[in-house]
Parts: sequence; structure tokens; C-alpha cells
Amino acid sequence: MDRSERLDAISAAVESVARSHGFSAVTIRRVADELGASTTVVTHYFSSRSALVCHVVGRVVSARTDELDAHLEGLRGRAALRAMAGWVVLRPSDDLHRLWLAIVVGAAGDDLLRTELDRFNRWWDERVERHLAELDPPDADPGTLADLLDVVVAGLVVAGVETDALWDHDRRRAVLDRLLVPIGLGEEGPPP
Amino acid sequence: MDRSERLDAISAAVESVARSHGFSAVTIRRVADELGASTTVVTHYFSSRSALVCHVVGRVVSARTDELDAHLEGLRGRAALRAMAGWVVLRPSDDLHRLWLAIVVGAAGDDLLRTELDRFNRWWDERVERHLAELDPPDADPGTLADLLDVVVAGLVVAGVETDALWDHDRRRAVLDRLLVPIGLGEEGPPP
Repeated sequence: MDRSERLDAISAAVESVARSHGFSAVTIRRVADELGASTTVVTHYFSSRSALVCHVVGRVVSARTDELDAHLEGLRGRAALRAMAGWVVLRPSDDLHRLWLAIVVGAAGDDLLRTELDRFNRWWDERVERHLAELDPPDADPGTLADLLDVVVAGLVVAGVETDALWDHDRRRAVLDRLLVPIGLGEEGPPP
Repeated sequence: MDRSERLDAISAAVESVARSHGFSAVTIRRVADELGASTTVVTHYFSSRSALVCHVVGRVVSARTDELDAHLEGLRGRAALRAMAGWVVLRPSDDLHRLWLAIVVGAAGDDLLRTELDRFNRWWDERVERHLAELDPPDADPGTLADLLDVVVAGLVVAGVETDALWDHDRRRAVLDRLLVPIGLGEEGPPP
């Protein structure tokens, strides 16, 4: 493996441990075990557990924000906000949702995770605010609209991973479409 | 301390570690440290980490389900469903919400947490189903209504703990009231 492949493998191992056991289970020893390698394979790249977690979470956050920004290219207002919600909850991304929840839980007791989560939230809030301002007519209460959108999106993320029941695309779509209506983001436009 | 006080203190220590660091951080050593006691204080009551976690999570789940059942006494249909949602998300219960998310995250890699979470979910689903059946007229699609309610409740739980921003009672109430409308649980009754 070259350096880049090795870093990919280490990242995948960290994400796998965090998804299944939370970030407090992520140690250099555990990640090496997950890779079936010795700890020196990890410590060659990362001098500490913090450096390892910081690298992996930062990489995940940056990859997702870049991806969504590309997805939103050219979209404005209602179309952009619907695309943001759909991008998070309608794609097959249980692994990503589990990882995000592990970051949320871990952030309570880990400043490093808190910082990365705040970075993601600032980025998300900035996009939501921008596209809410593009609505025509602009909404009288963009703060509440942003809250409603965040609750619907977060709820679908958790519901999908919380039970063993299958939340397939149609089931998510049905819930999202109905809950976007009171936010004025239903397909037919804002409610009267 | 007598036995009951000691068990209370041990439970509080387990919950505190789990809320801040997730369940994989819950070990007999860590719980003893949190108590400022030796590990024998914990092992006197619990022979293993599994027994400890099982006792505490089972106790939390039972206490919450008993409490909600008492809260719902005499309520039916729409009133009961609104009371269930409000009971979860409108009380000051950030600690409980963090603990629940830690159980959700931990359940991915821990059969014991999975079992307790499933027990709670079955209990919740049974109450929702019962009160949906009491609606007059009964809804044509109770499965989707239950999904909508679960997503709104889960979303408010996560939104409240996910950021450092204050989600006070009024802010939660505003979101809940608007999102209950498309579920037919708005105060004014079902939408046309």
C-alpha cells in the first residue's frame, strides 16, 4: 500500500470502530486491531489518538461539505433547501448517519469532536440561512424555518438508525414530503 | 450509605460517564473513579461490566416508561399522542436525551443495549399504535402517522443536544406545534 491507500484504510478503520462503539472506543490499539496490523502502522502517521481522530473526522466533514456544495451548484431558494434535506436523508447513508450520531454523542465529552461538529454546523447553518434569504417572498421568520428544517432532517437521520426496521427510500420520502409542507418547502409551494 | 443509596450513586455515575463519553467508556474502573471509590464498591453489587450496564439501562427504561404511563392516565387519541410528544421533548431533559442518544449509538455494537432499546421502542410503538387507533375518525394510514410522529420527536431530541445553542421550552414548543399539524395533531385538529 502507498501512503494514500494506508491513510484511507486507517480512516475506514477509525470510522468503523466509531460507528459500532462510539469515539471513546477509538484508540490506536483498537484501530490497529481493526486493520489487522501492529500499532506502529498507525503511529507511523499519527503520533497520538487525538491527531488520529482529528484527521479522520476533519476529513469526513470536509468530504461531505464539498460533496453537498457540488450537489447544490446552481440551486437557489426552495430548490436548494429541498436538495439539502434530500441529500442528507434520502441517499443510502446509514453508515454516515451512524458516524454523525457518534460524533454528536462524543462531542459532549471531547473538545476535538465538539470543534469539528461546530464547524459542520456553522457550514450547514450558513447554507440554510443563505437559501432561506433567497425565498420569494422571503419568509417572515427564517429562524423558525431553519429550526423546523433541522429537526426534520435530524429526526430522519436518527429514525433510520435507531431501530432494526428498514427505512427505505420510499418510507423516508413519504415522511420528508409531508413534513416539508409546514416549512413551506412542499412541492406545491408554501401553505396558504 | 445504605444499599439503595449506593445503587443510586452507582447508577448516576454510569449515566454520567455514558452521557459524556458513550457506553464504551463505561467500565467498572471508570465508574469507580467517577464515584471517587475503589472498584470493589462497584463489584460488590455487580460481578461484571455487563451486569452493571444491564441494571442501569434497564432501570432508566423502566423508570421512564412508568412515568409516561402515569402521565398518559385517562388520555386518549389525539390528546394522548400530543402528550407523548410533549412529554419527551418539552420537559427539561437534556441529560435524558443525551443518555438515550448514547444508547442508540452504543446499540450498534452492543447486544445488551440493543435489547434494552428494542424493549423501549416496542413499548413506545405499542402506545402510539393504540392511541392512533382511538383517533376519530381513525386515520387511513396509521403507519405513516407513526413514522411522522417518531421523526418529529427524535429530531427535537437530537437538535436540543447537538449544538451548544439553547433550545428552551418556547423554541421547542414552536417547532413541535408546527410539525404536529401535518400529522393531524395540531391543536386545531387535522388539516383539511
